[in-house]
Amino acid sequence: MDVTELFELIPFARELGIELTGATDGHAAGYIELDDWHSSNPRGMVAHGGVAYSLADTVGGAAAVSANDSITPTIDMRMDYLAPATGEELHAEADVVRNGNSVATVDVVVTDGEGTHIAEARGVYKTGGGEEDTPWTKGVDRSDTGHSRSE
Amino acid sequence: MDVTELFELIPFARELGIELTGATDGHAAGYIELDDWHSSNPRGMVAHGGVAYSLADTVGGAAAVSANDSITPTIDMRMDYLAPATGEELHAEADVVRNGNSVATVDVVVTDGEGTHIAEARGVYKTGGGEEDTPWTKGVDRSDTGHSRSE
Amino acid sequence: MDVTELFELIPFARELGIELTGATDGHAAGYIELDDWHSSNPRGMVAHGGVAYSLADTVGGAAAVSANDSITPTIDMRMDYLAPATGEELHAEADVVRNGNSVATVDVVVTDGEGTHIAEARGVYKTGGGEEDTPWTKGVDRSDTGHSRSE
Amino acid sequence: MDVTELFELIPFARELGIELTGATDGHAAGYIELDDWHSSNPRGMVAHGGVAYSLADTVGGAAAVSANDSITPTIDMRMDYLAPATGEELHAEADVVRNGNSVATVDVVVTDGEGTHIAEARGVYKTGGGEEDTPWTKGVDRSDTGHSRSE
Repeated sequence: MDVTELFELIPFARELGIELTGATDGHAAGYIELDDWHSSNPRGMVAHGGVAYSLADTVGGAAAVSANDSITPTIDMRMDYLAPATGEELHAEADVVRNGNSVATVDVVVTDGEGTHIAEARGVYKTGGGEEDTPWTKGVDRSDTGHSRSE
Repeated sequence: MDVTELFELIPFARELGIELTGATDGHAAGYIELDDWHSSNPRGMVAHGGVAYSLADTVGGAAAVSANDSITPTIDMRMDYLAPATGEELHAEADVVRNGNSVATVDVVVTDGEGTHIAEARGVYKTGGGEEDTPWTKGVDRSDTGHSRSE
Repeated sequence: MDVTELFELIPFARELGIELTGATDGHAAGYIELDDWHSSNPRGMVAHGGVAYSLADTVGGAAAVSANDSITPTIDMRMDYLAPATGEELHAEADVVRNGNSVATVDVVVTDGEGTHIAEARGVYKTGGGEEDTPWTKGVDRSDTGHSRSE
Repeated sequence: MDVTELFELIPFARELGIELTGATDGHAAGYIELDDWHSSNPRGMVAHGGVAYSLADTVGGAAAVSANDSITPTIDMRMDYLAPATGEELHAEADVVRNGNSVATVDVVVTDGEGTHIAEARGVYKTGGGEEDTPWTKGVDRSDTGHSRSE
């Protein structure tokens, strides 16, 4: 199973309509088609800040997972809003800018798909430091997240 | 219309199940009852990072609005995750720690409702600097957000 | 007086050895030549996190001032450390990525001058919202910070 | 050697005049007596943002070290400025709010010593994930940072 298939199983990502289009070697991309219920204004579209954040956290996490053979819980993320999201889509591109043995640092740019930067995020994801079971790995076959030779 | 009624109209907050229980004088509180679709793991409950963030951004925004007679778009927010959200609810308490003429700085603590800190956030919200119409104020009667004497 | 001359008068920037090499139209650059006292380790050079931060905050502030006719106090800044600063210099390049009527959002990249990214920062600076005197403008001729036609 | 003695050896902390007054069990405190050269304004005292940050990073790091038997490099830190530092001192109190096997999350409050909050910071410090030598541990006897029984 590759990273995009794994992320399609995330219930909240499905609920929000997040589509992951790729995640390999520390790079990932995805998008959301915006619907009325994504808005923060009942009289028009301006996507709620939580929509862009959830997309950024998910695509950023996919980038981190793609660079490591493990689940990578988010430790922290900062989101800066640059323009209101009044279009029909939100797109995110994520890059691991540092992949350490404890954490990965990931940059994410969120656009409207037509060149306008909606937001920029920077997050830190856990990459190591423990092999114990966690709520994130419950029921997960760890080989699902890796780059097994039999793929 | 008071701040809690105004926030009940936000489509994305309704979609996520965010309930705002109070917002006055720079303090606000709210919660979410977690359902399976809030999870980041298909095999069990650990709320997606975007759920806690969306709750924090919304309750933090309500605190900022309650301290100002205006819509207060989010400029930036940082979220730190302290424990996995494996319980049945997420609660948030927000406090404006600085209310300036340009921006308000807001602290938010997210718990599971039983004392465990799930996350802490700090955000900056715009409080001034423009009277022009924005995507957030389209169709909004500005007096809705204020503390008019005739309430 | 241009922005670089103005910043050369900042006592703490002089103390740290910060040299501003340019600041126009929302872009700024500067550097520090590292000395033993910049280190966080008495047995070798690894510049203290506060050195890279102080450089980033200063060069980021110069970028914000260069895009606005005003002093721009820092509202918040996040710094992510990517590699230890073990070289002889630290260089910073700053770009205003959003210049609003309340705040400017600024990206800063800190390198060792030889291509290694030491740190990345993102900061928010106040651009408006008040004409009153502040501790930052005490004794400052406001025309010093602007782009007056008589320069 | 205890944590406060270890931190007194940090060249940049000495240069800035940082005094660490305590660091045990995930709590730490320290202060700076402000001098003219700490200012960002040549005509009066308003401490440069890098001064409060350097204090916060140092005291936050001492809190992280005091909770772990290891050097704890800073991974990231966010600083929010709440009031100008126009007084004679800056004080910082730091608390580890989460101490994990990969990272520690630390809250820091910076005041003027008379009750005014100057800034709040939140940082993430590395606590594990590697035993290899780093620029920070070069020449450091690791037992210096721990809680050896023979102290």
